[in-house]
Amino acid sequence: MKLNFLYSNIQADVAAIEEELRLAVKSEQAPLVEEAALQLLNAGGKRIRPIFVCLTARLGQFQWNQVEQAAVAVELIHMASIVHDDVVDDADVRRGLPTIKSKWGNHVAMYTGDFLFAKSLEYMTKIANLEAHQVLSKVTVELAVGEIEQLRAKYDFEQNVRTYLRRIKRKTALLIAASCELGGIVAQLDSKWHRKLFLFGYYVGMSFQITDDVLDFTGSEKTLGKPAGEDLRQGNVTLPVFFAMEDKAFRAQLRQISETTTKEDMAPFIETIKASGAIAKSEAIAETYLQKAIGILDEFPPSKELKPLKQIVQFLDKRKY
Amino acid sequence: MKLNFLYSNIQADVAAIEEELRLAVKSEQAPLVEEAALQLLNAGGKRIRPIFVCLTARLGQFQWNQVEQAAVAVELIHMASIVHDDVVDDADVRRGLPTIKSKWGNHVAMYTGDFLFAKSLEYMTKIANLEAHQVLSKVTVELAVGEIEQLRAKYDFEQNVRTYLRRIKRKTALLIAASCELGGIVAQLDSKWHRKLFLFGYYVGMSFQITDDVLDFTGSEKTLGKPAGEDLRQGNVTLPVFFAMEDKAFRAQLRQISETTTKEDMAPFIETIKASGAIAKSEAIAETYLQKAIGILDEFPPSKELKPLKQIVQFLDKRKY
Repeated sequence: MKLNFLYSNIQADVAAIEEELRLAVKSEQAPLVEEAALQLLNAGGKRIRPIFVCLTARLGQFQWNQVEQAAVAVELIHMASIVHDDVVDDADVRRGLPTIKSKWGNHVAMYTGDFLFAKSLEYMTKIANLEAHQVLSKVTVELAVGEIEQLRAKYDFEQNVRTYLRRIKRKTALLIAASCELGGIVAQLDSKWHRKLFLFGYYVGMSFQITDDVLDFTGSEKTLGKPAGEDLRQGNVTLPVFFAMEDKAFRAQLRQISETTTKEDMAPFIETIKASGAIAKSEAIAETYLQKAIGILDEFPPSKELKPLKQIVQFLDKRKY
Repeated sequence: MKLNFLYSNIQADVAAIEEELRLAVKSEQAPLVEEAALQLLNAGGKRIRPIFVCLTARLGQFQWNQVEQAAVAVELIHMASIVHDDVVDDADVRRGLPTIKSKWGNHVAMYTGDFLFAKSLEYMTKIANLEAHQVLSKVTVELAVGEIEQLRAKYDFEQNVRTYLRRIKRKTALLIAASCELGGIVAQLDSKWHRKLFLFGYYVGMSFQITDDVLDFTGSEKTLGKPAGEDLRQGNVTLPVFFAMEDKAFRAQLRQISETTTKEDMAPFIETIKASGAIAKSEAIAETYLQKAIGILDEFPPSKELKPLKQIVQFLDKRKY
């Protein structure tokens, strides 16, 4: 858990959620799915969605078990979408470990994703709050639409940046937004704050995904747990690519990239993008979103519980993995 | 709608649900998924899960929009599982039309299934009843476990009949059971009847799947909308196969069946199974389940609303498609 230094006061919460995630995927009837899901859990991850549930819940009065169930539910949805994405991206490695699809094949990966998604629903329905159910069901639909949009937009170097922003909103930002709102809902904050927390999470999520997309070019295989330039190789056109594509000659070159492009072939593309100024421009957009997120927090009445939220936002801005 | 003759009084309900299913899959942002989902809707289907929601709701006091939302939710879950199953079974045809996976590929099929599942959740959360949410989330987990069990059991001619019964319980019977219970829940029946309706649906579902498995051998490509023996060719060991496998020599022959077996190769296997008495034995088991289902209905206080439920059970017993 690389983020632990940020929230020593909720380390115990995160450890409990990690434990509950292991219980969630336990399945005596389906040992294969348990093994596959544990593989994914063991690969780690920042668990930022559960962390946001915990941190926003601390702004109100909460019962721990409700927070834990919401946190487990959002992480299971995230895990389900990762497993299915790895099938579509034909990804062999995630965070340095073999993906489920590379180890057990596409069929096991598809059904493991279904299982994780169904489990998330089961956790969610332990929370006796209809608004919570509705928030999560809505973003889940958007997430699925985002998956399909991403599929259609692969290797499309003529798309515009608006389609990218809409896609990362659906694929990433809305689930983080829902995580933040869920914390507020289970902590029984006044309903006017629910929307604010959702918006806070949305801004954080947009910034988070842009930073991820930048790291795909600036990170190393060691820090990323996957080869640099992998997103682009898989045909995912991200923000740095849009900025670099303002050079029409480069845009034309990008059309060479296809399913058969190797990671070695990617080196000159990565170099051009890094030399184009696209990284700094993308980082500036990510930063703008983070400032908007901080701005939302400043609307809340003063509370020491806002501090870890601000800390994590700052951390996400500076992260290298 | 081939079953219309059975429930003229609820034809309007079924038509409204059909219309709502079309609205449910409408997606301006994802026209591809809409097209794919409409393909599946146009292929038809008996819609027995929505019909059971409607029929059981008529045993109590219901608001139509709650019934409709529950009915749409269960059918969307069923559709999602079909789309994913067709990927795993590498099925090209369903009810005489190309499957989503054959027309658009496995990736679109996987994400279309995810979208349908997410949409079902959205419909479900429109029902302000936590018990309804919980019933559906539980069977959804079991459904996913059943999918994985089925994957593991493919081409395994050493498994025993108990694993088959457990598998069809998860894959089919529990969602029909939940459909029946949901009708009772939204109609605000006393909670003692919820469990009875669930059990009724469970027995109907077991019988329904066994009849499906028999029809795979006794039906024609024309009535089935797929080649006869297709389940066995795909490695799914069903009840008639278990009975026929009591002949050890035949069991040994079955081991020749694999992914590369053609539908022409299946003819002698189908003939042997039909000549073995396995069909009549399987039909007898299906009949036993139906009698148990009728037995449950007999526990309810007399009502004219029980009649269509009994009619549909009788019809399912005699159906040829």
